[in-house]
Amino acid sequence: MSLLVIGTVAFDAIETPFGKTDKIVGGAATYASLAASYFYDKVNIVAVVGDDFPEEEIADLNKHKVNTEGLQVKAGEKSFFWSGKYHNDMNSRDTLVTDLNVLADFDPIIPESYQDCDFLMLGNLSPQVQQTVIERLKNRPKLIVMDTMNFWMDIAMEELLATIKLIDVLTINDAEARQLSGEYSLVKAARKILTMGPKYLIIKKGEHGALLFHEDHIFSAPALPLAEVFDPTGAGDTFAGGFIGYMAKVGTVNFNNMKNAIIFGSALASFCVEKFGTEKIRDLSQDEITARVQEFVSLSKFEI
Amino acid sequence: MSLLVIGTVAFDAIETPFGKTDKIVGGAATYASLAASYFYDKVNIVAVVGDDFPEEEIADLNKHKVNTEGLQVKAGEKSFFWSGKYHNDMNSRDTLVTDLNVLADFDPIIPESYQDCDFLMLGNLSPQVQQTVIERLKNRPKLIVMDTMNFWMDIAMEELLATIKLIDVLTINDAEARQLSGEYSLVKAARKILTMGPKYLIIKKGEHGALLFHEDHIFSAPALPLAEVFDPTGAGDTFAGGFIGYMAKVGTVNFNNMKNAIIFGSALASFCVEKFGTEKIRDLSQDEITARVQEFVSLSKFEI
Repeated sequence: MSLLVIGTVAFDAIETPFGKTDKIVGGAATYASLAASYFYDKVNIVAVVGDDFPEEEIADLNKHKVNTEGLQVKAGEKSFFWSGKYHNDMNSRDTLVTDLNVLADFDPIIPESYQDCDFLMLGNLSPQVQQTVIERLKNRPKLIVMDTMNFWMDIAMEELLATIKLIDVLTINDAEARQLSGEYSLVKAARKILTMGPKYLIIKKGEHGALLFHEDHIFSAPALPLAEVFDPTGAGDTFAGGFIGYMAKVGTVNFNNMKNAIIFGSALASFCVEKFGTEKIRDLSQDEITARVQEFVSLSKFEI
Repeated sequence: MSLLVIGTVAFDAIETPFGKTDKIVGGAATYASLAASYFYDKVNIVAVVGDDFPEEEIADLNKHKVNTEGLQVKAGEKSFFWSGKYHNDMNSRDTLVTDLNVLADFDPIIPESYQDCDFLMLGNLSPQVQQTVIERLKNRPKLIVMDTMNFWMDIAMEELLATIKLIDVLTINDAEARQLSGEYSLVKAARKILTMGPKYLIIKKGEHGALLFHEDHIFSAPALPLAEVFDPTGAGDTFAGGFIGYMAKVGTVNFNNMKNAIIFGSALASFCVEKFGTEKIRDLSQDEITARVQEFVSLSKFEI
């Protein structure tokens, strides 16, 4: 029994109205595996970096009990690098640099020791690579969660649709749900997307929370209203990692557990945005997480 | 003990992607009093119309037990008329026509029989007129709820701030909360607005629900995800009317009752948008309302 996270492990340079960073460690698999590690202790990652990636960063993942046996280090190559600048509203950003580097020909090799995978998180990557991972697992995991983005809808819709067919939970934002379905109403969009393969759809709405769709059921999760959003980078990956980490912990896949998983994922994401990059989610205590989850409870509870 | 609603009673002509109407009856006081009437049976209105306003429409308000003694009918004058066209996303609209007519010199006269007012809903009107109503009530109501909009912030900020000082609950949308406070973060905006007079602030976020702020407490209410929004006109007024109608029914002003009032108000608003104008909220049963409120409960409930 283990949880496999696939995605980028990379460098980011981020500028927000609050400041800017040099190259710091980021990447979907970094955020997601760190978040998952607070709930589950058999988290494996598959990713690729160049030999410019600091060994102490890998050691820090290991300290969080994230197994990096599947992290390929390519000699003489450079790690994926993304740089972006957020606008004042923090809801939109400009990409300044995208250097694929090692990611350009990433072949996701699954170590034999990872083959007991029950829970699979496909972080945002080309849908072709995501599909390859599914194919290379000898047994179909109990739960496959996939994150993707508008970029793949623009340039690889066919591959995306083929991969979506194979998964259980799709996590996208509201604009992406509209793009993928061609429907403006999120209810209609969800109905359509749930015929494309996934049994569950999570629509992330940032500061407005998230919606979970399954058959005819809908769950609306609040977002924690925050005085400051310092840096939104990685919030979606952190959400997804917290979500699947919690699911792996409880073990049983059903709508009620997914509702709670969304709350735990949202709680982790609410920490993530409080500092630059992965800083805040490297150093959380279980008490802090429990207290934050209680804030979500009191935020949305009413008795009629 | 009674509930007083002040606002417009007017004509609207509405165009949405689903169709367009001729002149139909609208206005903040119409929506709000109809919504309130499902929870409370002593609803009084103060408003003004011209003699072009159909008597049967007044009779229909009376059929809903809305007392129209304070509805002034100006001989030889015309009722307020607004015409607007919604964009495809239904979240934005263009105003095509605004004919103030009788509204231009509206003097809100409070009938003596309304002076037992415990709950006061100040529908969207000039803040000067809203303030006059407060001054003309011999006893300060137990709860004063005020709705306003960006228009008054643009042209009458000083009067608006003077009126806001006198009230208990302010209902505005997220853009208006940002404009009024000069803060982008809604948490910071709320903190600032709660120093301006109101003890409670409701920020309406349309399809994303609503936030209630009071001291250090926040309640996040979901919106019902709808397959079709047919016509959003009056949804905010219906929300406010349902909110204060429920508060008048339970009688006690506290945070928990307000949370429920927001759910009931949201339920009424979710009906409102299903048809053009006031059509849907003229003909609801208590069973329909109860069932809709239950949808809000199951939408947002989780057990951690």
